[in-house]
Amino acid sequence: MKTARATPGLSGTTRLYAIIGDPIAQVGSPRLFNAEFQARGIDAVLVAMHVAPADLGGMIATFRAMKNFDGLIVTVPHKIQAAAMVDSLGGNAARLGAVNAIRKLPDGRLLGDNFDGEGFVRGLAARGIELAGRKVLVIGAGGAGCAVVNAIADQRAASIGVYDIDATRRDALVRSVGAHSPGVPVGSSEPVAAGFDVIVNCTSVGMKPDDPLPLDISGLDANTVVADIILKPVRTPLLEAAARLGCITHEGPAMLEGQVDAVMDFFFATSPQAHA
Amino acid sequence: MKTARATPGLSGTTRLYAIIGDPIAQVGSPRLFNAEFQARGIDAVLVAMHVAPADLGGMIATFRAMKNFDGLIVTVPHKIQAAAMVDSLGGNAARLGAVNAIRKLPDGRLLGDNFDGEGFVRGLAARGIELAGRKVLVIGAGGAGCAVVNAIADQRAASIGVYDIDATRRDALVRSVGAHSPGVPVGSSEPVAAGFDVIVNCTSVGMKPDDPLPLDISGLDANTVVADIILKPVRTPLLEAAARLGCITHEGPAMLEGQVDAVMDFFFATSPQAHA
Repeated sequence: MKTARATPGLSGTTRLYAIIGDPIAQVGSPRLFNAEFQARGIDAVLVAMHVAPADLGGMIATFRAMKNFDGLIVTVPHKIQAAAMVDSLGGNAARLGAVNAIRKLPDGRLLGDNFDGEGFVRGLAARGIELAGRKVLVIGAGGAGCAVVNAIADQRAASIGVYDIDATRRDALVRSVGAHSPGVPVGSSEPVAAGFDVIVNCTSVGMKPDDPLPLDISGLDANTVVADIILKPVRTPLLEAAARLGCITHEGPAMLEGQVDAVMDFFFATSPQAHA
Repeated sequence: MKTARATPGLSGTTRLYAIIGDPIAQVGSPRLFNAEFQARGIDAVLVAMHVAPADLGGMIATFRAMKNFDGLIVTVPHKIQAAAMVDSLGGNAARLGAVNAIRKLPDGRLLGDNFDGEGFVRGLAARGIELAGRKVLVIGAGGAGCAVVNAIADQRAASIGVYDIDATRRDALVRSVGAHSPGVPVGSSEPVAAGFDVIVNCTSVGMKPDDPLPLDISGLDANTVVADIILKPVRTPLLEAAARLGCITHEGPAMLEGQVDAVMDFFFATSPQAHA
């Protein structure tokens, strides 16, 4: 993880990037990407833009038109709507129907892709935690859960169990991943920790201090890796409880940090056709 | 003049400001305003946005809608068009029909005003050069010339002579300033330096290396102050020639630096009603 650093002096030649979301105050991308721009000597800045859903279309039109505005990070609640506003989608975005990054290509077209799942996998890998051959339980089949389950399937996990309080949403995810990654057994599971090697919470349960745990951890083994994608608090009740049982815990911000390199590659790829 | 400094680390809470223009690479506002934000401990950033004339309306609409986007510096060629897109105009903007700064008021309305002329006057004053009681010649009656002549009239100059190659434009400026500042004699002049205390070039003549001088300086007195508003080159042929004759010369960037405090007051005024 890079430490927070000041951005270099901005000028009239500085290229513009932004993260768009609503709310926006909580985002970590300005810190992460400006540190990266500075470390690589790139004359660019990434700023936070607070955009309401009703204003997304106008904002994307302004992004299209502005000559020195080159890329967007897209966060909640815009990921699905924005996917319909770009000109082409990369593979992950097409599979998920959601973008979390948009690049303006040299010809002006907008290319969207999604690095949330890859960010989660890279965040684990940066700590030496591999998913290949592991039995994984993912709690939550919303946007983040879909991205994470797809990326875990790409890593050739031994099996993936999916739980969501909404059975329709859960089953839709199980079917789509099963169709895309036939070699990885994916099925619906109960929210019970026993028997899994890796557990990932992709729900928002744990953001509020009096939230219950998102699953039953009574059978949790000390060899299990327990991960959360919640950004605040960094130490969720689930992670604290797992740590008390001796588990390896993995915090939410690692997913953001894990995708910085991938998004930088996406923004600055010299052969964008490879993505389109 | 403040030296260039890095902006502080940006985050999701950072308020957004921008300078809009076309071209944009030459602007100095990001350096000047980010240094000011940092010096005052304000969590804000000013970025350069390259906006073509056809895209100005959409850009202003996005500015209106974006919840953390608080102010704009407006530069060439948008100053007149933008004046028609805001909800109210301050006194100088109303007089000039042009804005160079727009603030979003707490109720969401956009207030435009113009600090170009005040910036020029403050830039001179910062060096101890007063305009009250001086005979001033201004070359050029375009947007910059109008702003400068109005501000000089407000300083109670002894007299103001205006020259422009376009007699209609010159006469319109002379009439409007005369009506607004009846105590200051304003008239049309030839482009001849002799007999003036202060000479200001408000044309673009001098930007190109082989430009002629914008006026006849054969009768220039060594006690005359010769000012240029051209930003690049900082040392125009006119300033170089005047310096060789022993005159005090005054460079273009001082006009930008001179308006930073005024624009900061405008952006962060706690009683914006005073401007509206």
